[in-house]
Amino acid sequence: MNTQNQQIILINRPEGVPTEDAFELRNIPIDKPERDQVLVKTLYLSVDPYMRGRMNAGKSYIEPFALHEPITGSMIGEVIESNSAELNVGDKVQGFLPWQLYNTVDAKAVSKINNTNVPLSAYLSVLGITGLTAYFGLLDVGQPKKGETVVVSSAAGAVGSIVGQIAKIKGARVVGIAGTDEKIAHLENELGFDKAINYNTTDDLQKALEEACPNGVDVYFDNVGGKISDAVLSLLNNFARVPLCGSISSYNGENEAFGPSIQPKLLKTRSTMKGFLITDYEERFDEGLRHLAEWLFAGKLKYEETIAEGFENAPRAFLDLFAGKNVGKQLVKVSDPSK
Amino acid sequence: MNTQNQQIILINRPEGVPTEDAFELRNIPIDKPERDQVLVKTLYLSVDPYMRGRMNAGKSYIEPFALHEPITGSMIGEVIESNSAELNVGDKVQGFLPWQLYNTVDAKAVSKINNTNVPLSAYLSVLGITGLTAYFGLLDVGQPKKGETVVVSSAAGAVGSIVGQIAKIKGARVVGIAGTDEKIAHLENELGFDKAINYNTTDDLQKALEEACPNGVDVYFDNVGGKISDAVLSLLNNFARVPLCGSISSYNGENEAFGPSIQPKLLKTRSTMKGFLITDYEERFDEGLRHLAEWLFAGKLKYEETIAEGFENAPRAFLDLFAGKNVGKQLVKVSDPSK
Repeated sequence: MNTQNQQIILINRPEGVPTEDAFELRNIPIDKPERDQVLVKTLYLSVDPYMRGRMNAGKSYIEPFALHEPITGSMIGEVIESNSAELNVGDKVQGFLPWQLYNTVDAKAVSKINNTNVPLSAYLSVLGITGLTAYFGLLDVGQPKKGETVVVSSAAGAVGSIVGQIAKIKGARVVGIAGTDEKIAHLENELGFDKAINYNTTDDLQKALEEACPNGVDVYFDNVGGKISDAVLSLLNNFARVPLCGSISSYNGENEAFGPSIQPKLLKTRSTMKGFLITDYEERFDEGLRHLAEWLFAGKLKYEETIAEGFENAPRAFLDLFAGKNVGKQLVKVSDPSK
Repeated sequence: MNTQNQQIILINRPEGVPTEDAFELRNIPIDKPERDQVLVKTLYLSVDPYMRGRMNAGKSYIEPFALHEPITGSMIGEVIESNSAELNVGDKVQGFLPWQLYNTVDAKAVSKINNTNVPLSAYLSVLGITGLTAYFGLLDVGQPKKGETVVVSSAAGAVGSIVGQIAKIKGARVVGIAGTDEKIAHLENELGFDKAINYNTTDDLQKALEEACPNGVDVYFDNVGGKISDAVLSLLNNFARVPLCGSISSYNGENEAFGPSIQPKLLKTRSTMKGFLITDYEERFDEGLRHLAEWLFAGKLKYEETIAEGFENAPRAFLDLFAGKNVGKQLVKVSDPSK
């Protein structure tokens, strides 16, 4: 076994769009697992837009990353040494752990992945927090009804692509907004979106949306905020619902986070805008995962991944999220499983 | 009986802040009531901020005023001729009618005011749409819990002053925002607000709010939108509720309706912002009026009125709303009752 461990740490708090300079690769030792501990080899890292907020010093719903400490996030790994009765060598596990090649953790800090009918990486996307975010944000906050119009921004992203497909399963008309023609084609041709709009090549997003949503908008699943959302919010129907899942336009402090007040639009239409965090739904995760798995196995739900290779490329993969380079879930493949 | 009728009509659609030039007083005849009709003499007119929206041509939740047609709104009147079995001469009624000295209408277009334990004008304020708006907006959308902090903007206005008092009845800590020292004193000394802030004389509204809300904000009853609301929204606690009742900062198209995106604030705190219209609660009006009357007679709820005298002064009274001149409900007294 390779006994060299590495971690990726945050070395400064970027202003605006972060660059790779904010991160540093550091060599560290591997700790031997003590009683009830396991040594986990990292297989896949999840990189997610919300992590940008953790790079700032300010308090948010989740603690900021500490300077000179490793980035932490969702990952999948394999147990390669075990001092726990609960986990065996070879077990695949998921957890929320430091970005390291190896982590020595209490067995109870990770959870075993039992189902192996799907690729392991699916547990970081459609069968993980990503899928659950789409599921509860759309169904619990958005509550689309049959025949209603659902608009999704970042529609080709990890959450957005699942949101649109669940909305179709529920009988809604689904319009996606994304930033490349390749994504547009994918949404319309592969994922069953009724219409997708490329905000980068559309001269008049407002007009394109009006044409795509002749009956107005009943649910707007907002991943982005900013100007794109301003355009969608102008088309809300009465009693529309706007689940706020992300606000990527503002994460790097761009000007887009400044715009017309949206209160008049919500007021006129008696609409509801609601922020949600997937962690608030923890008690219902089993319900969500059961449905997601059912749809997945029935072929009703496709999931997409963009996989970067190599631990050292995790910062780059994270930064690419803000350039909209990923289709579906952006992951980093760190190692192959041993067996 | 004076047989000269008059009406106030809209003669142009103002851009920005309207002036009296938009209105014109016109002499018209009085129509004799036909079968099942009554002739109603206007006693009080209600002037309300939402009417600004009706001066614009665009579609909203309510039809725009027609050009060269009378303004319509809530009013209280007295039946002075009746061809209906349902209403007698002398009955006091309320309805949503054209701004005229006299209206000839179907008896079913108005509703009789039965309770005469309070001044008639109360049926246009605390025991009317104003009180109901405060009641349902705060309790149904805002849902304040004992010990929570409720912030109200336009706190000395018709709805705001009732919102704050109901919040106190429900055991919340209440902070009001208003625009004159006289209003501040009134809120703190007469209406029992825990703290009131004068946004016109406070150098740093954000800081003043932070000091007034050491435990953050759980419910923000938003009557104004714009910069004032931006400051309050920065202090939302997790799972805060923001009933949108009005957006007076934007009604005249001022720049204040442009500002930082609020989605990130709602997202971080998992808060809910919801527009509501009192007409959506019509089925529950009896419930609301029962509670409002109960609190009123128990001395727990005070109501304030600013009454302009004379039909011809209705446009001025309406325009004064946007200069924040009123304390409590702004009414126009048109005639004394006959008996």
